[in-house]
Amino acid sequence: MNDNLFELTCNSVSAVSEDLLPAARHKMDNKTKPLGALGQLESLAIQMCLIQKSLSPRIDQKTLLVFAGDHGITAEGVSAFPAEVTAQMVQNFLSGGAAINILCRHHSIDMRIVDMGVKSDLDSHPHLINKKIRRGTRNFASGPAMTKEEMVRALEAGMTGFFDEYSKNGMQILGLGEMGIGNTTSASAIISAATGMPVEVATGRGTGIDDEVFRHKVNVIETALDYHKPNPQDGLDILSKVGGFEIAGIAGAALAAASKGVAVVLDGVISTAAGLIAYLLLPKIGGYLISGHRSVEKAQSAALEKMGLEPVIDLRMRLGEGTGAALTINIVEAACRIMNEMASFEEAGVSEKS
Amino acid sequence: MNDNLFELTCNSVSAVSEDLLPAARHKMDNKTKPLGALGQLESLAIQMCLIQKSLSPRIDQKTLLVFAGDHGITAEGVSAFPAEVTAQMVQNFLSGGAAINILCRHHSIDMRIVDMGVKSDLDSHPHLINKKIRRGTRNFASGPAMTKEEMVRALEAGMTGFFDEYSKNGMQILGLGEMGIGNTTSASAIISAATGMPVEVATGRGTGIDDEVFRHKVNVIETALDYHKPNPQDGLDILSKVGGFEIAGIAGAALAAASKGVAVVLDGVISTAAGLIAYLLLPKIGGYLISGHRSVEKAQSAALEKMGLEPVIDLRMRLGEGTGAALTINIVEAACRIMNEMASFEEAGVSEKS
Repeated sequence: MNDNLFELTCNSVSAVSEDLLPAARHKMDNKTKPLGALGQLESLAIQMCLIQKSLSPRIDQKTLLVFAGDHGITAEGVSAFPAEVTAQMVQNFLSGGAAINILCRHHSIDMRIVDMGVKSDLDSHPHLINKKIRRGTRNFASGPAMTKEEMVRALEAGMTGFFDEYSKNGMQILGLGEMGIGNTTSASAIISAATGMPVEVATGRGTGIDDEVFRHKVNVIETALDYHKPNPQDGLDILSKVGGFEIAGIAGAALAAASKGVAVVLDGVISTAAGLIAYLLLPKIGGYLISGHRSVEKAQSAALEKMGLEPVIDLRMRLGEGTGAALTINIVEAACRIMNEMASFEEAGVSEKS
Repeated sequence: MNDNLFELTCNSVSAVSEDLLPAARHKMDNKTKPLGALGQLESLAIQMCLIQKSLSPRIDQKTLLVFAGDHGITAEGVSAFPAEVTAQMVQNFLSGGAAINILCRHHSIDMRIVDMGVKSDLDSHPHLINKKIRRGTRNFASGPAMTKEEMVRALEAGMTGFFDEYSKNGMQILGLGEMGIGNTTSASAIISAATGMPVEVATGRGTGIDDEVFRHKVNVIETALDYHKPNPQDGLDILSKVGGFEIAGIAGAALAAASKGVAVVLDGVISTAAGLIAYLLLPKIGGYLISGHRSVEKAQSAALEKMGLEPVIDLRMRLGEGTGAALTINIVEAACRIMNEMASFEEAGVSEKS
């Protein structure tokens, strides 16, 4: 454990190379297509140029990390699924049978699971990275979810050995997903605290709760925020009071990725809440962030708006795990190939607009 | 030329197997995820089950056809690009430098170009299929775009040798793109005629015309529809009066694909207008159709609504060529893999919703 890893990582992040914007825009505008006709594929390609400080952005290796953790708040009865599903789903990830496994296989994305705080012990597995901080967070209805010390360890766990452990050959793009029964409650609390979105708007149905549990979930979050009064500008304060270990891990990984010039693809509402924590800590990581998909959870929109991000995919998905990020990683790769392989008007001998 | 090919093909289309819907829904609902949490991926997987009459839908080979043709209506000055760009872009497709080439390579989609009516002669090329009906349509401002005989030949050209020429090993999914300077004018006219959407709403900026040319384009289409008075229920009447050869080819290919149990992925406004012609001719092909992406051209929405289709991708693209279809073919393939490879709650030993 490096005592200064968190600060060292934050200090080593430099903003993306905005000075390359005119050249990247010019290169894209000379491709054989009407101006702007490839829509978001164009903006993604240009963003990758700025991130990689290159007009020929490459994606040779794609990685997706699924951070898993349990939540003490489940004691309040806020989820449709029992808490043991977190560990069961981690086993499912390790066996290759979950949605995220299929989408990562389909797109040749290297995938690893990070145990940040699953309640039960997990057998070792080549794809499982053990960073367990504690067996689940504390119930934030009656106290902070984690101590400041646990929080720093969790952030650093997301940063530690970033390239060594998760990727042997370096990577250019990192998707960040999660698994944790109860974690939409934490995500809604984080986003409501940070953006001021009313709790009843920022709260969603998670894995599928009914009206009664929904009203209870809203009440639990409202009461907790009223009790904790987290500082809306202070990502660390919000994270320790109502966050989760997997959320801290994602925030740490996003900061570490940015410090290495790696693009970060966020996923649904939980991954986006974690991205927002990282953004509050260090707004200049914004240029490295890509929103993988539009979640049906409304809180996500408030978080994206705060960061100035626009989702790539909108398939009415609400699974998490990194599923939206996996689909988007493939689209970002396509955008890079457009930038590198598509002919210019001159190269192709095509007449320009009259 | 088989004189009866058009009718034979239409007669051999059977509706998708709606009777498999409960079993397909049940299989999807037992996957390790909350009910409905994979959104449109679920509905795409289920649609592929109904199309293939199987609970394990396969995509082994993916094909995309780009139909190209010129338009007499360009004489009216409705496009931002000169008409010779159609042939130049076909050369670009054959050289591998266009956006659609990159997206097809990226997703291992077999791509062919079909010359349905490009003005100039094109050198033979292994990826070019010559079905030229005529060197461009007639100017529909002063008469029908094509004769009835040309129209039937064009529809049949899209059907002929469907599997033999376009695919050696059979295919399960076919994307339909196009290239043809002037063809948004034709597409807007078709969709306005078929749906009743006012011409000024159904008309878009195409490859990027200014306000003055836009007003002129609206006027050209309004005058033509007023002159031709196509029957809104009669796809053949609309097609011959204001259509295009590449649009007829796409409509024919969609019908032929459905007759062989192949899923059809439409692209932007032109491909969707062609799909609408096919749908008017034979509404039961609707179950085989997938809308590849939301175009920025408003006419597309009216056509999709008429067919009950919802786009998969929405990246503000307006290029055509099949670019939206290529991205969506990959997503449909992912959806099929979800159906086949994802574990059920029982298989994975995951607790169900309490």
